[in-house]
Amino acid sequence: MYLTKRLNMTSASLNFTFAALADPTRRAILTRLSQGELSVTELAEPFEMSLPAVSKHLKVLEHAGLITRGRSAQWRPCQLQAAPLKEVADWVEEYRHFWTESFDRLDDYLKELQAKEGKKKEKKHVRKK
Amino acid sequence: MYLTKRLNMTSASLNFTFAALADPTRRAILTRLSQGELSVTELAEPFEMSLPAVSKHLKVLEHAGLITRGRSAQWRPCQLQAAPLKEVADWVEEYRHFWTESFDRLDDYLKELQAKEGKKKEKKHVRKK
Repeated sequence: MYLTKRLNMTSASLNFTFAALADPTRRAILTRLSQGELSVTELAEPFEMSLPAVSKHLKVLEHAGLITRGRSAQWRPCQLQAAPLKEVADWVEEYRHFWTESFDRLDDYLKELQAKEGKKKEKKHVRKK
Repeated sequence: MYLTKRLNMTSASLNFTFAALADPTRRAILTRLSQGELSVTELAEPFEMSLPAVSKHLKVLEHAGLITRGRSAQWRPCQLQAAPLKEVADWVEEYRHFWTESFDRLDDYLKELQAKEGKKKEKKHVRKK
C-alpha cells in the first residue's frame, strides 16, 4: 500500500517534471541556474523576453520543484533544485541497457566489417605476390 | 554553425520526448514495451481504455520517436525505440553532481551528528564512573 502510494507520488511528480522540461526556454533557465542563483531580471536578459513571460516559466519550474525562490521581497533569487532531476535520471536508467545493447551490436557489426575488409586486402596482397 | 544546428535539433527532439514522457499512461506503455513488442489491442488491455484513446497516446510516442510500428496491415506491433531516452539520459547527466553533492553533504551532516552523539555518551559514561 505504502509502495503504491509512493509510486503514484513519484509518477505525479514525474508528470510535472517532464512537462516543465518540455520547453527549451525552461531548460535554458535551468542551465543558467546551474552556475548559481539569479534574479528574474538577470534570467530574463539573454532571452529577449518580457519579465512576465519569464515569470510564467519560473512558476512552472517552481511548481515542478525544479527551482525555489528567495523570500526577500525586493530580490527573490531563483535557485536550482536537483531532486526532481534525480527522479528523471532514475527513471531513464531503467532503459539504459536498450541503447548500450544497440551500440554494442553496432560495434560488433563494425568489427565484423573491418575483419572482412582485412581479409579482402590480405587476398589482394597474396594475388599480387 | 553545424554544432548550433545540431544542438537545436537535439533541443527540438527533447521537447517532443519530454512532452511525450509527461503522461503516466505513455510511460506505462514504454515500460510494457520494454518487455517486447505488442499490438495496440494487447497494449490497451491493462489500461481500461478505449482503443482510440490508446492509439492517440501511441501517436504521441511515435511522433517523439519513442516507438515504431510494424508495417503489416493486420497486426502493427509497437516497438520501443531507446534513442530519445539516451538523449534524456545525456541531458540529465549534466546535473548529476547536484544531487550527488547534496547527498554527500547530508552524509557529512549525519556523520557529524553521530560523532557529537558519541561524545555526549562518552561524557555521560565518565560522569557515572
